[in-house]
Amino acid sequence: MPIWSELGKKDQQELLAESRARYDGLKARSLRLDLSRGKPGPDALDFSNGILGALEDYHAEGGIDVRNYGVVDGLPELKRLFADLLGVPAGNMIVGGNSSLTHMYNTFAMLYLFGAPDGMGDMDCRPWHRGDAAKILCPVPGYDRHFNLSADFGAKLVNIPMEKDGPDMDEAERLAASDPSVKGIWVVPLYSNPAGSVLSREKALRLACMKAAAPDFRVFWDNAYGVHHLWEEHEAPDILSMCCEAGYPERAFYFFSTSKVNFPGSGVGLVATGPKTIERMKVHLKLQTIGFDKIPQLRTVRFFDGKAENVRLHMTKLAKVLRPKFEFVMDRLDAEFGGTGLLSYERPLGGYFISVDVPEGCAKKVVEIASEAGAALTPAGATFPYGKDPKDSNIRIAPTFPSLEDLADTLDIFCASVKLAALEKYLAV
Amino acid sequence: MPIWSELGKKDQQELLAESRARYDGLKARSLRLDLSRGKPGPDALDFSNGILGALEDYHAEGGIDVRNYGVVDGLPELKRLFADLLGVPAGNMIVGGNSSLTHMYNTFAMLYLFGAPDGMGDMDCRPWHRGDAAKILCPVPGYDRHFNLSADFGAKLVNIPMEKDGPDMDEAERLAASDPSVKGIWVVPLYSNPAGSVLSREKALRLACMKAAAPDFRVFWDNAYGVHHLWEEHEAPDILSMCCEAGYPERAFYFFSTSKVNFPGSGVGLVATGPKTIERMKVHLKLQTIGFDKIPQLRTVRFFDGKAENVRLHMTKLAKVLRPKFEFVMDRLDAEFGGTGLLSYERPLGGYFISVDVPEGCAKKVVEIASEAGAALTPAGATFPYGKDPKDSNIRIAPTFPSLEDLADTLDIFCASVKLAALEKYLAV
Repeated sequence: MPIWSELGKKDQQELLAESRARYDGLKARSLRLDLSRGKPGPDALDFSNGILGALEDYHAEGGIDVRNYGVVDGLPELKRLFADLLGVPAGNMIVGGNSSLTHMYNTFAMLYLFGAPDGMGDMDCRPWHRGDAAKILCPVPGYDRHFNLSADFGAKLVNIPMEKDGPDMDEAERLAASDPSVKGIWVVPLYSNPAGSVLSREKALRLACMKAAAPDFRVFWDNAYGVHHLWEEHEAPDILSMCCEAGYPERAFYFFSTSKVNFPGSGVGLVATGPKTIERMKVHLKLQTIGFDKIPQLRTVRFFDGKAENVRLHMTKLAKVLRPKFEFVMDRLDAEFGGTGLLSYERPLGGYFISVDVPEGCAKKVVEIASEAGAALTPAGATFPYGKDPKDSNIRIAPTFPSLEDLADTLDIFCASVKLAALEKYLAV
Repeated sequence: MPIWSELGKKDQQELLAESRARYDGLKARSLRLDLSRGKPGPDALDFSNGILGALEDYHAEGGIDVRNYGVVDGLPELKRLFADLLGVPAGNMIVGGNSSLTHMYNTFAMLYLFGAPDGMGDMDCRPWHRGDAAKILCPVPGYDRHFNLSADFGAKLVNIPMEKDGPDMDEAERLAASDPSVKGIWVVPLYSNPAGSVLSREKALRLACMKAAAPDFRVFWDNAYGVHHLWEEHEAPDILSMCCEAGYPERAFYFFSTSKVNFPGSGVGLVATGPKTIERMKVHLKLQTIGFDKIPQLRTVRFFDGKAENVRLHMTKLAKVLRPKFEFVMDRLDAEFGGTGLLSYERPLGGYFISVDVPEGCAKKVVEIASEAGAALTPAGATFPYGKDPKDSNIRIAPTFPSLEDLADTLDIFCASVKLAALEKYLAV
């Protein structure tokens, strides 16, 4: 397909008719496919089935019986594994639960209900539910669950443009410096959701050093894809150390989980932060639970023999399953849209998603008609706070779950839907 | 030992000297024992080891792959099992997580941050962090974790005397009717912690029907020992139905877990409440997790073959291990203290604890000197809000964890410590 806008009116009409015929043909197949879910397929999960084997010895280090109560902040051997894997100090973390999202929610709940030491660890700040509504900076496009959980607490979400190497830091610094109700920023440092970009060291330093009008300004650092390489390996900047060196040892909350390392529903979550804040979190945690489930914790340690290198090796196996799916999608997008001006995207460097932009005002329509033809997509707008994409152009593609065969059919419907929606819109104007 | 107070001064002095000699002898053995922990011993846990076997088929009902994300409010087959076991409607529950305490904490967090529909389900009430501090009625002696989690949110804890068949309802009704800041009451309906008493149907009805000045007055109904019979079987009143019939369908929060059914650290928790409140809870829950760990859920269903009768059968096996421990303790207390006036207790009807009262002003001293002689006890005062027992006389004994042999040594130290502390106090006056 040539650049559509350089074609004459008649050729454009023909192209629209072709697109409609193709779309109708696909719709007639009554397929039921799903490109919305950021979760691995059974092919990737099978690499971790060993973790479901019998647990013959249920004693952890120091003789701890993992069947019984206790060990509120997680097994020491699992903390050491995570410390080796991520470069986060074992003393500053809580591990447990199956979900880093729950740690994020709990962290917000603590900040809203009780406040926390300020970024420098010097004083106690007020609970965030008092005074003006907290504002949270949200790099866009970004992760809907970050936005929605912040909004649940009544935070006002403020869009910050994402650039190739992270958030627009000029804008973030300007807003945080001038407004004491700006209380934090979301960051996915490695393989951002949805663009798959990598935060530069320079921008990480600016996050650690930036002056904020709110003394308890926080960086919510979700390293969800911290070891989820697809091609070249990248590393997230060491934000906790950077914050320490900048004089804000309590500024960052670091989140991670093994949800997409072994089993999404049955991984182990982690939160790490400054020494004063982690102590505060443990005080509340002890009132919240007598201890997380230690059986998945021990299984995780055993499955990887306690070694970070075994986790990395495991991730290379998963990448072998995921990489062809990403390459298939990108090859297909290049073939269908290269040079047409109807769709653009940046190649992700890793992670779980491909972020595409269709012509302005078309994203909702694309998702709607793709769904009608049998291909579920992430709702248009989901990558923006309040589900509102101001240009209505961004769509998140999640290629990890379907088989390659299903992916081919789904991409067929998606590409046909983009062409139909875009050409209809242009030619109607 | 005769009734000490009827002895002459010289005999009393001799008794004190005997008690001191016995205590010193025990202390010289340098034992390290623990009677503080309300958790089962390895002997009881071993009955559930089958649950740690290999999970060959990881598909739940409807083909759900329990390894992956999703099913935020828990597996339907587990809800049905709990519905059969407890008589709680499957449609009104959230199951998941390893801890009912976490459900309690989350429930308080929701009430404090967001409020909830009122008891009648008619209107939205204000978040509890606004206005006057909420007051929570705490039957005493009671469970320290209930008290401490409430206090974490800033609630003011108000003591209500426990009677043989539940809280003093005259007092509860009087306080709730007259003060709109009284927002709730804690209740352990079956085998209360620590006295092991059973709530009467009459008092349950009064809880369901009582007029409260706060429209969002709540009953926090922790049925922690709902199937934990030791001798005769009792049943908790059906509080959710009673509240419905009384016109307050949203009044009660019902908590349960399998923590002391199979593994304390690795059970499955449950919260159930009225239909409007449960929907509200799910809205927040969806922002908090993509789903609880479904592997323990599926294992629980498989281990009991989905049948409530198998849970009950399993509990009779555990009772066979626990009962001799309770009987040993009570026989020993009867033999050492019968008719002395130095210690009193009511025989628990089930559950995990024996609640004893030593002479006023002696409990702290008993716990202190028992600890010095090598027997750790639950801290005196723990069974009261803020750790303050106004009479300094109640001590919670947790006989479930130690072996019978350790229990004998521990009781030796405990009894000697009670006698020494009590006689020293009396004779010093």
